[in-house]
Amino acid sequence: MAKRNPNMAKLQSGYLFPEINRRKTEFLAKNPKARIISLGIGDTTQPIAPCIIQGLAEEVARLGTRKGYTGYGDEQGLKELRERIAEKFYDGMIDEDEVFISDGAKPDAGRLQVLFGSKATIAVQDPSYPVYVDSSVMFGQTLDYNKKTAYFDGIEYMRCSPENNFFPDLKKTKKTDIIFFCNPNNPTGSAATHDQLKELVAFAKKNRSIIVYDSAYSSFISDDNLPRSIYEIEGAKEAAIEVSSFSKSVGFTGVRLGWAVVPKDLKYDDGNSVNKDWSRIMSTIFNGASNIAQHGGLAALEEKGMQEIKNNVSYYMKNAKMIRNAFEKSRYRVYGGVHAPYLWVKIPGKTSWQAFEEILDKVHIVTTPGVGFGPSGEGFIRLSAFGQREDVEEAAKRIEGMALK
Amino acid sequence: MAKRNPNMAKLQSGYLFPEINRRKTEFLAKNPKARIISLGIGDTTQPIAPCIIQGLAEEVARLGTRKGYTGYGDEQGLKELRERIAEKFYDGMIDEDEVFISDGAKPDAGRLQVLFGSKATIAVQDPSYPVYVDSSVMFGQTLDYNKKTAYFDGIEYMRCSPENNFFPDLKKTKKTDIIFFCNPNNPTGSAATHDQLKELVAFAKKNRSIIVYDSAYSSFISDDNLPRSIYEIEGAKEAAIEVSSFSKSVGFTGVRLGWAVVPKDLKYDDGNSVNKDWSRIMSTIFNGASNIAQHGGLAALEEKGMQEIKNNVSYYMKNAKMIRNAFEKSRYRVYGGVHAPYLWVKIPGKTSWQAFEEILDKVHIVTTPGVGFGPSGEGFIRLSAFGQREDVEEAAKRIEGMALK
Repeated sequence: MAKRNPNMAKLQSGYLFPEINRRKTEFLAKNPKARIISLGIGDTTQPIAPCIIQGLAEEVARLGTRKGYTGYGDEQGLKELRERIAEKFYDGMIDEDEVFISDGAKPDAGRLQVLFGSKATIAVQDPSYPVYVDSSVMFGQTLDYNKKTAYFDGIEYMRCSPENNFFPDLKKTKKTDIIFFCNPNNPTGSAATHDQLKELVAFAKKNRSIIVYDSAYSSFISDDNLPRSIYEIEGAKEAAIEVSSFSKSVGFTGVRLGWAVVPKDLKYDDGNSVNKDWSRIMSTIFNGASNIAQHGGLAALEEKGMQEIKNNVSYYMKNAKMIRNAFEKSRYRVYGGVHAPYLWVKIPGKTSWQAFEEILDKVHIVTTPGVGFGPSGEGFIRLSAFGQREDVEEAAKRIEGMALK
Repeated sequence: MAKRNPNMAKLQSGYLFPEINRRKTEFLAKNPKARIISLGIGDTTQPIAPCIIQGLAEEVARLGTRKGYTGYGDEQGLKELRERIAEKFYDGMIDEDEVFISDGAKPDAGRLQVLFGSKATIAVQDPSYPVYVDSSVMFGQTLDYNKKTAYFDGIEYMRCSPENNFFPDLKKTKKTDIIFFCNPNNPTGSAATHDQLKELVAFAKKNRSIIVYDSAYSSFISDDNLPRSIYEIEGAKEAAIEVSSFSKSVGFTGVRLGWAVVPKDLKYDDGNSVNKDWSRIMSTIFNGASNIAQHGGLAALEEKGMQEIKNNVSYYMKNAKMIRNAFEKSRYRVYGGVHAPYLWVKIPGKTSWQAFEEILDKVHIVTTPGVGFGPSGEGFIRLSAFGQREDVEEAAKRIEGMALK
């Protein structure tokens, strides 16, 4: 038969979250009465706000009328939505024709690999969201998985740990074509300062690298002095693509809506426009985000919707605070949870999967093993603040009483 | 700066439909009073049926309630929807875990390239839907575009013309890893017989190729003796992936919902499961189709919804008949339009783009130049039957009176 893409064989085990789910199901089979609380996957739990539901519902109703029905839209997305994103999230720093509406930041991160092809080299934060590494492997940009280091050879891993305040030591970082940078970071919950991003942009420009900046959690930054977009850094339009999402701030994880910003100033080394290639890729292997979702996005970016985003963020960040306090009371060292809905907890003397298993076993809470995000995540677990309040309250109680051997 | 994916430079001009749109806009700028009728892009115009709107609306309403809210679903899609697809479209020939819900057949066709990687070779019908060739080029599976032949070197083009009844001469077809096969075909509107598909499956099995069978238009087949799925052919589960869509039959071109069937019996030459790799790809670089769209799909596959699909198909196929009659009255040779919503018309003595320009100029109808689907489409135009009735009536009148010089 036809040959398998040889890069598929390089991938390690399953994608992280299916694996967690498998272990959770296994635990439940053995302990059918356990009341498990999941603080594992970063999946929203709050219903979508009424004004945004209205935006979705109105488009559904229109699609049932002859006058309101529309088929294919612009592959780049509704112009009005692109304009509103440019205005509300980028304060006019970018133009609407630099915004490309998509079905989410994760699919965009995968598709983006097509811009650069199989010969590109990438750098990633270690730990980081698995899609950057996995898609890079699938597209043939890496060598084999190295069992000794637990790294893929050919990827530049930028260690982010408490020792460097979760910002990579760029002096030790090798030059690559692409730098994936998620800020606020998933999983560590850390948010970079203006000076740090300035350093990152300067580093990219010096090396002629392109930054793929993932700002899916930027709405959770609580300090207005911290940058929410890479384009707040001067010159970043010549050095960075930004991918982002409505998933977490609006509760659209299941509705699917995100966007990528590809500035017109961004060029390849041969002078060709990255924006033009992205347009070609999106119109060829994508077919537009759902029109219903896009109208939900439009409603979310009206004044009322923006207030709902704030309410949503506050709700989850209050959860984050409770989880943080509970771990601190139990004398664990906790990072994150201030500018991001993730907490990053060091469990001394345990591997991540040991900690995952013990916490599931003792207090019936599902966490995410930090090592699933990269070798530097070993010994940590990630907790998501996206739970419902009473679950988080109950989880906090259980954590406070928890003593891991 | 970072290097461009060198394969992007191989692509020819823009994607077909943006180019048509550009010319239409140009024409309108010069002739602002022209009442243009578009029979170009295959975009649905009928509103979505009330029972399906209800399915969409109910999910939207649920997402606004605490009890009904859901975030990420299974990346493979709602189990109930997969079961219903297996039952309604495949009559139990395939299992629900062989169905993967997606945002459409076009994005799936692009993502599918990841299964095979940059070393795979492909065959396509000539003419065919551009995404197969373009995604193959992007993923590095081809050599350069050959200006002499107007083909990409390294792709096996299977000529489909009136001379061979639009079914390729497989005896002359070179062995490739992948065979893209769209049936009923877009753009020619031809539908293969059971015997022809049997020959195709046997050919693929002999060569150890995998067929990517695009059945996005299968609902439009009017003769129950013609196969609607490749799996109606014995042994096809070991030889074929099928991609399909709700776009045209339900009017979901903008809502975005499709699926791929990847049978568990399908293996690579090394014995690995294609189904397992597809699951890995979908959970890594995709994040599920919109939950709202999926609930619309569920409603479409209830008895009432299935009747609406039939009504929808009848409506468009009546359009097809009118367009067909009009061209025949004008003594043009017309193909298609019986088992597919596309008509394929030979315009003697003209190139496709000349015919496109003349028809736009004379009768203000937008068509699609056949050559945009491949060199064997030269001299043809494609017409879509997806218009609204009164537009099609008016277009038919104009076509009847049309005399191209």
